[in-house]
Amino acid sequence: MSEKRYAVLAEGMFDEEAKTATGVMRYAEAPTVAVVDSTRAGTRAGDHVAGLVSEAPVVTDVDAAMAHGPTTLLIGVAPAGGHLPPAFRRSILRAIELGLDIESGLHEFLSDDAEIAAAAAAKGVSVRDLRRVPDDLDVPTGANLEVKAHTVLTVGSDCVLGKMTVCLELDRETRRRGLGSVFVPTGQTGIAIAGWGIAVDQVVSDFIAGAAEQLVVQGHARGGDGAILWIEGQGSLNHPFYSGVTLGLLHGSAPHAMVFVHEPGRELIEGDPRYPIRDLAELIDDQVRMARHIRPAPVVAVALKTNRMDEEAARAAISQTERETGLIADDPVRFGAGRILDAVLSSR
Amino acid sequence: MSEKRYAVLAEGMFDEEAKTATGVMRYAEAPTVAVVDSTRAGTRAGDHVAGLVSEAPVVTDVDAAMAHGPTTLLIGVAPAGGHLPPAFRRSILRAIELGLDIESGLHEFLSDDAEIAAAAAAKGVSVRDLRRVPDDLDVPTGANLEVKAHTVLTVGSDCVLGKMTVCLELDRETRRRGLGSVFVPTGQTGIAIAGWGIAVDQVVSDFIAGAAEQLVVQGHARGGDGAILWIEGQGSLNHPFYSGVTLGLLHGSAPHAMVFVHEPGRELIEGDPRYPIRDLAELIDDQVRMARHIRPAPVVAVALKTNRMDEEAARAAISQTERETGLIADDPVRFGAGRILDAVLSSR
Repeated sequence: MSEKRYAVLAEGMFDEEAKTATGVMRYAEAPTVAVVDSTRAGTRAGDHVAGLVSEAPVVTDVDAAMAHGPTTLLIGVAPAGGHLPPAFRRSILRAIELGLDIESGLHEFLSDDAEIAAAAAAKGVSVRDLRRVPDDLDVPTGANLEVKAHTVLTVGSDCVLGKMTVCLELDRETRRRGLGSVFVPTGQTGIAIAGWGIAVDQVVSDFIAGAAEQLVVQGHARGGDGAILWIEGQGSLNHPFYSGVTLGLLHGSAPHAMVFVHEPGRELIEGDPRYPIRDLAELIDDQVRMARHIRPAPVVAVALKTNRMDEEAARAAISQTERETGLIADDPVRFGAGRILDAVLSSR
Repeated sequence: MSEKRYAVLAEGMFDEEAKTATGVMRYAEAPTVAVVDSTRAGTRAGDHVAGLVSEAPVVTDVDAAMAHGPTTLLIGVAPAGGHLPPAFRRSILRAIELGLDIESGLHEFLSDDAEIAAAAAAKGVSVRDLRRVPDDLDVPTGANLEVKAHTVLTVGSDCVLGKMTVCLELDRETRRRGLGSVFVPTGQTGIAIAGWGIAVDQVVSDFIAGAAEQLVVQGHARGGDGAILWIEGQGSLNHPFYSGVTLGLLHGSAPHAMVFVHEPGRELIEGDPRYPIRDLAELIDDQVRMARHIRPAPVVAVALKTNRMDEEAARAAISQTERETGLIADDPVRFGAGRILDAVLSSR
C-alpha cells in the first residue's frame, strides 16, 4: 500500500473544466481511486468528461473516498475567487486527519496556511503546492544550448489549446516506440501528472528563461543523452496577457524544434473581439523569427485541436492546414501522434 | 526644509556603473546634496561620471553628509553578491538614527529586515523599497487599449543601451515645448527618479502585461488626456535572459508608437558570442510584428547610443542608420531629442 493513489477533490466542479483533475486521471502514473464531488456522488468519473476512461467512483466526501484506498488528496479544481472555500478547508483538514498527503494546484499555497500546515505536521503527512517555484532561480547560464537531448517545444495561437496534451501524447508514442522520451512540465497540471517541474507563470519575470533552462537540464538528466524532451508550452506569442511567459519559455528552453498547436476556426484570443488571431502561416513565421535569436529552430508540424468538429470536418481541416503551411498536420489526441512524431524525428 | 533632498550611499562604488545614483542625480526633481563614498571623499560627484554636472560633495560617511541637509538616504548602488554588506547596514542604521528616510533599489528588501524596520519604526522615518511590486496585480483588463494619451515605448537591440535615458530626454524636451508629457518608469532607477512606477522584472510572470497596463493607466491619470507617455523599455525581444519581460511590457502597455534604441557597432548581446545581434532592420521588423498582435504600432525613430564614438563617427552612424532604416535617427543625449520628438509627434 505504499504507492501513490489519488482521491481527487473537485467539489461541485467535476467536469471538462477540471483540468488538473482530468489531466491527472488521463496521464499520471498514479491511479485516481475516487473523486470527491457531493453534487455528482453515486456516478463514475468517466460519466462527466468526454473521452475520459475512468471507473473511479464519485463520492460525497473524503470519508467516503477512504474506502477506495487513496494515499493522497489532490485539489483538482480552482474555486472561483482564488480563496479557499470553507468546504475545501474542511475536506483538506479531514484528509490530513485520515492520514492522506495533500497536493494542490491552487494559487493560495496550502503549506503557508497555518492551520493546514500545523495539522499536517502533527499527523506527519506532506502538503505539496504544485505552483510553488524554487527560490534559487536565476538567469540562464547557457546550459540550455548544451543539453544533449533533442528538445521540442509546443507553441500555438492561443491559450487552452491542449499544448500539454499534445506533449503527453507525443511522449507516450515516443516511449511506445522504445525511444528515450521525457515530458517536461511547465504548469501545475503537468507537474501533478509528472511529479516534477516548475510552474513558469509563477516565476518572477526576470527568471522565466532561467527557469526554462533548469527544466531542460533536469529533463535531460531524467532522459539521458539522445532522449527527446517534450516541453509543455504556455500561452502564445500573440496572447495579450501571457506572451511574456511564452517568449521567456521559448528563449530559456532554446528548443531544437517546435510543434505548433492550433484550433481550426478559432478566430479570437480568449473569445475577445479586440484580439483577432492572425493567419496561421504568419503566426508560424513569427514563432520561427523569435526562436532564431537564441537558436534557430523550425516549426516541424501542426497539431490541431478538432474535438468540436465531426470526423469529416476534422480530416478536411487537417488537409487544408497541410496545404496552407506545407507542414505535417494532425490531431494527435484523435488520430494518434505517429505522423507528428515522424515529422519531429526526421527533423533531428 | 520639508522638500526631499538626497544623500546618496555609494560606498566604494561611485562611478559610471552606479546607475541608480547617477540617474537620480541627472534626472530626479529632488536634488542630491551629498554622496557617501569614503574611497572618494573630498572630491565632487561630477569628477567621477562623464557628463554629470554636479557639485555635490563626496563625503566619508552619513554623519558628514548631514552638514548638507539631506532628508533621505538613497541606496544608489547594488553591492556584489546581492546581500547587504555590514558597512551598508551600519550606514543605513545611522541614517535612520539621524532621522533620514530610506529609499533602496536593492534586491533584498530593507523594509523586510527586522533590525532596519524596527529602527525606522522607532524613529518614525519611512523605508521604501523601489523594487517592491504591488500585491494586487492581475492580467490586463483592456484599459490599455482605451487610454486617452499617446503612448510611446522605447525598445531596442540589447540591455544597457539607455532606453530609460532616451525616455527621460524625450520627456524633458516635450515639457520644454509646453506639451503634456509623463515619464513612465518600469525599473528601479526610473522609479527613484520619478517617485512612482513598477519594477516589471520583479512581477510574477503571469502579471507582466497587467503591470504594464496599470502603468499606462496611472501615467494617463498623471498627464491627462492627450499627454505623451514615455514608457521606459526593458531588455529586448532578442535577449536570451529578459525577452519575456520585454514582450510582456510591449503587449501590456500596447503603445501607439515605438522608438528603437541601438548602439552602432554592438554585435553581441551582453558581449556573449553565442548571441549575435542581428541586422537592425530585421530587429525593427520583429518589433513591429510582435506589436501588431495587440495594437499595430510603428517604430518611428531610432535613438543611437554614440557616447563611445567621436563626433564625426557618431554623425556618420546616424546618417547610415537613417539610410538603412528609412527612419529618423539621432543620439538624443548627445545632440538633443528634438528630431526624434518631431518624428513621434508627426506619427500621432
